[in-house]
Amino acid sequence: MLEHGGRLRHAARQYGIAEADWLDLSTGINPHGWPVPVVPNEIWQRLPQDDDGLNAAAQDYYFNRIPKVKQDANAVSPMKLLAVAGSQAAIQTLPMLRPPAQVAIVAPSYAEHAHAWQRCGHHVVGMTAAEILQAGTTAQVAVIVNPNNPTGKLFCREELLNLHAQLAARGGWLVVDEAFIDATSEHSLASVCPRPGLIVLRSLGKFFGLAGARVGFVLAEENVLQPLAESLGPWAIAAPSRYVATLALRDTAWQDATRKALPLAAQRLADLLSTQGLPPSGGSSLFQWVCCVSAARVHQHLAQQGILTRLFETPPSVRFGLPRDEAQWARLAEALGGIKR
Amino acid sequence: MLEHGGRLRHAARQYGIAEADWLDLSTGINPHGWPVPVVPNEIWQRLPQDDDGLNAAAQDYYFNRIPKVKQDANAVSPMKLLAVAGSQAAIQTLPMLRPPAQVAIVAPSYAEHAHAWQRCGHHVVGMTAAEILQAGTTAQVAVIVNPNNPTGKLFCREELLNLHAQLAARGGWLVVDEAFIDATSEHSLASVCPRPGLIVLRSLGKFFGLAGARVGFVLAEENVLQPLAESLGPWAIAAPSRYVATLALRDTAWQDATRKALPLAAQRLADLLSTQGLPPSGGSSLFQWVCCVSAARVHQHLAQQGILTRLFETPPSVRFGLPRDEAQWARLAEALGGIKR
Repeated sequence: MLEHGGRLRHAARQYGIAEADWLDLSTGINPHGWPVPVVPNEIWQRLPQDDDGLNAAAQDYYFNRIPKVKQDANAVSPMKLLAVAGSQAAIQTLPMLRPPAQVAIVAPSYAEHAHAWQRCGHHVVGMTAAEILQAGTTAQVAVIVNPNNPTGKLFCREELLNLHAQLAARGGWLVVDEAFIDATSEHSLASVCPRPGLIVLRSLGKFFGLAGARVGFVLAEENVLQPLAESLGPWAIAAPSRYVATLALRDTAWQDATRKALPLAAQRLADLLSTQGLPPSGGSSLFQWVCCVSAARVHQHLAQQGILTRLFETPPSVRFGLPRDEAQWARLAEALGGIKR
Repeated sequence: MLEHGGRLRHAARQYGIAEADWLDLSTGINPHGWPVPVVPNEIWQRLPQDDDGLNAAAQDYYFNRIPKVKQDANAVSPMKLLAVAGSQAAIQTLPMLRPPAQVAIVAPSYAEHAHAWQRCGHHVVGMTAAEILQAGTTAQVAVIVNPNNPTGKLFCREELLNLHAQLAARGGWLVVDEAFIDATSEHSLASVCPRPGLIVLRSLGKFFGLAGARVGFVLAEENVLQPLAESLGPWAIAAPSRYVATLALRDTAWQDATRKALPLAAQRLADLLSTQGLPPSGGSSLFQWVCCVSAARVHQHLAQQGILTRLFETPPSVRFGLPRDEAQWARLAEALGGIKR
């Protein structure tokens, strides 16, 4: 298992600053997450029910409201998506469903993908964004995070569909982790699912800001979803999480407002960083990525002032999440201003 | 995957009675579950944290307050238990941690155990309660539910420790599923954990009435817990579930009151059934089990009056959960009175 969590706690000890005093920009989670209502007591008490409305809400969210993409009215599939306890559950289980293969994974990227495929005996090859689009003739599986984390690289649908067609023709898979795509869902491949050999991962952790709920979805053909469901077993998602996720997926007013607000906040963050001599090399609606040789020094300087960012070693880079309110914006601006260059 | 859930929905259709009008006695869940407070929004938003207090609360609950068993002050282990997303997560993953073996499972019992071991290629042998206590020289693994579900059979600690010693001496495992033991925890093996080859499963679903939260624990040695944790991966339990479970495990006043109330309610249910000519063959603090040739007829008669019980085919039997309040007691009594014999 990779090292996870406790990053804030660790920083609190290392820098001698109490946890409550930190501005934590180390995640890509929407700081204005969906406002969770009180969950009725009976939801906590009963076993989670498969037919509680979560799947229907997810079908509507992922398939029926994708802008500018017309649905094929005849494309009715009995099972087009599977709810999972966070996309992590799918990330670690998908590699078990194939015999050891050549797996191309975009690098740098979210490390759990490579870890999970390696653990199951697959041969993992890290590739640049340009390289992986050519991997359709050599690899059996390609794994792409879109937009990529932490680089922010956005793959266009045509590129991905070409890659998918090459892989699928050879019985391969294209796995697209769309954890950060909700605010720019016109780039999502959700609308073309299910399609043989295409596996799209979605999550309510980032855009909806519900990382604690552990709810994600796998969009794929039934011949992938069925063994995945069997492997994950019944009741893997908590009933309160299902209840909250269902309401969040149905709250189109909140979604529309958030789809407008996040890109503005992201642009503001990019502008602020640029003004302070740290122009982002990439970003998404939920984070900006600054790639520079002094990354470690920038990270440390901010940490000394109680601002936690995410430092990456290869390449040296810092990822910034979105501040929540004006006080946080001001605090970040002031701390950035003090970086010696 | 075995068929789960939707039982009430199915009955509602079959008998033409709206779901809301049923008295559902088909589960063994405490009808007076722990009263869940409002979960703060930030718990929903942040990723679950391993060091959030859940493990410490569970250590206190399972190891430090077991009545009449003295703890060995020197027995400090770095990892004595693992939180899992319901004991189901452990049930389906434990069989993956051993090469195919001879597995003795008490029968009848909770069907997921046999299903999970079989699925991993183990040779499962169903045994009576008497037989399985002799299985230590033939099987590599023995699986016992204590008290058993649905029979209510309670195995005594000495019997289980003898069986465990035989299995452990040969590198085997004794798995004890204690899902229903909390109200009678003097019979639990938790206090002797960790011990080589002993694996105890606990859950917050039944006694605490938090089946929807999906929180359970595996009590075992680190050489079992470590690969189990690796296999289950990070963040499998929702953060709100961890938050609620931590508070419930710390609420000793509620636990003490419930530990008194449940056996009284169970006795009342046993008395009522006996009075109506359906003397239970066994039971626990959370259900009574009536084994009789007319089980199907009893189940159907009650269902026609909107009372759902759990019917078992082998042997023909009906399991009754606890009514919640006087109105439900009266409704059950009246319906039982109308059964023709």
